[in-house]
Amino acid sequence: MTISPLAPIAFPDLPHVEGVEIAVTESGMRYEGRTDLCLITMSEGTSVSGVFTKSLCPSAPVEWCKRIIDLGTARALLCNAGNANAFTGQPGEVVTKASAACVAEELNVAPQHVFLASTGVIGEPFEADEINRNIPELLSNQEKSDANEWEKAANAIKTTDTFAKGSSCVIEGTDAVVVGIAKGSGMIAPDMATMLAFIFTDLSAPASDLKGVLNQAIEKSFNSITVDSDTSTSDTVLLFATGQSKVKASDHLDAFEKAVQKVALDLAHQIVRDGEGATKFVEVHVTGATDNHSARIIAKSIANSPLVKTALAAEDPNWGRIIMAVGKAGERADRDLLKIWIGDELIAENGQQSHAYQEAKAASHLQKDNVSIHVDIGIGDGSSKVWTCDLTHQYIEINAGYRS
Amino acid sequence: MTISPLAPIAFPDLPHVEGVEIAVTESGMRYEGRTDLCLITMSEGTSVSGVFTKSLCPSAPVEWCKRIIDLGTARALLCNAGNANAFTGQPGEVVTKASAACVAEELNVAPQHVFLASTGVIGEPFEADEINRNIPELLSNQEKSDANEWEKAANAIKTTDTFAKGSSCVIEGTDAVVVGIAKGSGMIAPDMATMLAFIFTDLSAPASDLKGVLNQAIEKSFNSITVDSDTSTSDTVLLFATGQSKVKASDHLDAFEKAVQKVALDLAHQIVRDGEGATKFVEVHVTGATDNHSARIIAKSIANSPLVKTALAAEDPNWGRIIMAVGKAGERADRDLLKIWIGDELIAENGQQSHAYQEAKAASHLQKDNVSIHVDIGIGDGSSKVWTCDLTHQYIEINAGYRS
Repeated sequence: MTISPLAPIAFPDLPHVEGVEIAVTESGMRYEGRTDLCLITMSEGTSVSGVFTKSLCPSAPVEWCKRIIDLGTARALLCNAGNANAFTGQPGEVVTKASAACVAEELNVAPQHVFLASTGVIGEPFEADEINRNIPELLSNQEKSDANEWEKAANAIKTTDTFAKGSSCVIEGTDAVVVGIAKGSGMIAPDMATMLAFIFTDLSAPASDLKGVLNQAIEKSFNSITVDSDTSTSDTVLLFATGQSKVKASDHLDAFEKAVQKVALDLAHQIVRDGEGATKFVEVHVTGATDNHSARIIAKSIANSPLVKTALAAEDPNWGRIIMAVGKAGERADRDLLKIWIGDELIAENGQQSHAYQEAKAASHLQKDNVSIHVDIGIGDGSSKVWTCDLTHQYIEINAGYRS
Repeated sequence: MTISPLAPIAFPDLPHVEGVEIAVTESGMRYEGRTDLCLITMSEGTSVSGVFTKSLCPSAPVEWCKRIIDLGTARALLCNAGNANAFTGQPGEVVTKASAACVAEELNVAPQHVFLASTGVIGEPFEADEINRNIPELLSNQEKSDANEWEKAANAIKTTDTFAKGSSCVIEGTDAVVVGIAKGSGMIAPDMATMLAFIFTDLSAPASDLKGVLNQAIEKSFNSITVDSDTSTSDTVLLFATGQSKVKASDHLDAFEKAVQKVALDLAHQIVRDGEGATKFVEVHVTGATDNHSARIIAKSIANSPLVKTALAAEDPNWGRIIMAVGKAGERADRDLLKIWIGDELIAENGQQSHAYQEAKAASHLQKDNVSIHVDIGIGDGSSKVWTCDLTHQYIEINAGYRS
């Protein structure tokens, strides 16, 4: 698979999170010659919070995690790529419980402290044994979470991803860190689409603090990206705090929040940069809407429009399609108050093309890898930013051949 | 442009509608070597009703039509292809009025009886003169609406359409007819997307009767199709009744309703068959939902999913993506009660793949031009049918090159 042209130059050098250990292996379940199973263990006292897909047909692992998340304690995370264990019925649930029990027994912890995530094809039977037979080996191979291990973990959870995704941040005023890895490149839509993101900190934080921080961070990161408007059955974001640094979240709540937000936004942007077939990273900024909610609906309407996205792929400043997307959003707007910019070039105002508009300038902006569209609705103070990518032949190529 | 593989073999042989005359010409406004301007005149006493785009940034002609529709009288319809006169500000409105006035003066009727429609690029200045200088010639060339003229009219209103669209029906128990022409192939979504449809009858009907009949017909035809979920600024459906047959709508209301529904559904299906890049005509049938509204939301979620549509293009029975689309619709559903069929093949039941499922059978159904997906939610009586097409390389090809 060709690496996305929007990929970062290299996987970042992620710091060790005290209390976190990692091992990966090749289960052979679906892929050949690559790792696809990752077990991350965490020291005693690790707290956890999570956010899951809003799909009404979630995968078995998502249902498992939802059931245990409120206990707020985690000791292990087992994640496999290739089969999502979604729509696998009662057998899928049985497998999930068996895997949690298997890890729990070996670690001598409660099964309710073992988190599970699966990503890949939906609706194919999931064989417990293909996972469980690997668990003893994974446990005996656990390594300190250094840069090398993080990269291995980020690689093991990929499906159609063309690059591994990681990010980190030191929590200001402390020596504690936040480290995250993620996967996702298709079925990415606002409101938690196909993606997994696991974020770890050595801060000491009760699960209730994690919950507030995570919900805040998700809204402006993972919930503000879209690749194809599709929503997966498996989305999972988990935030774990081992407490090994002895720094308390409550003493540094603002800095902690900022660090988690930074890592979440970086991971979310990397997911868009790996959008299936993407050649442009696109920021859609809507201002001047009735309120933030309205701005968000308009921004999503633009970011999800196949006609806008194909125009971006063609580097064509066909701004009529942006108007179309604003119009179809159904939110309050007034043709004569709207303003539209591509890059710095003001294109439309007073209900028509701006007199000073130079198409060559907008076209030249669209030739860049990073593209911005700004729409000012001109009637209020609501604003929202959404990130997306263009829609290319490659998207069709990837998705018309995914299973075979 | 290659004709869609899903196109009918030939343009239908449409009957004359007494009181309707047609002329077309080449304005030279955008296209070379093809007709792009059509003037249809109607006899005195013609009543009219219409339905227009819900876009909040509608085109100038749509705003014009919305202003005059409640008067209920029509004498002419002027339609051009190539420039939508949308987001053209005050100048666009001035042009619209000037064109209506120009036709009205020549015909010696009120400008409020002249309907206008424009389709094509959004946001480009629209020169009145390019239209108006053709009006005298169009009026002097008006011909009786026979099969030949209907085909010319249907061709003159095309943009990215690969074939002209027409349909007709005799109103049962009468010798009155319903004839319709339409255009549309992109920006097609439920709730009135980029498409124009003009339907004519020689029945005698007050505008109020037309309104009821049209609203009924649209719901299960034009509002039940989707190509790319985008909604245009120019959608217009007009129903004209010349009254020349002396048959009264009130004496045959059921038969009239049926005839309009038949013509509207046939035109809507033709639009899907000309969906940009379409190689499959897809019926999505949802049953067993909480209510009809819920069924419709689920059906649209499936029909609009890029992942479902690329799988169909690949003739891949990747039914996990159908589950995904049901799940993301946000409507009541229960994994264990869902049933999914592709063609006649039952794929999923009891929360997992059906034991009797044979992938080869589903795959073989997907090799056909006409494909059906049936999802039974299993919790209520709500049902809905939506028609769409697959998402192919050709869609990208067409939409990444439309303006240039």
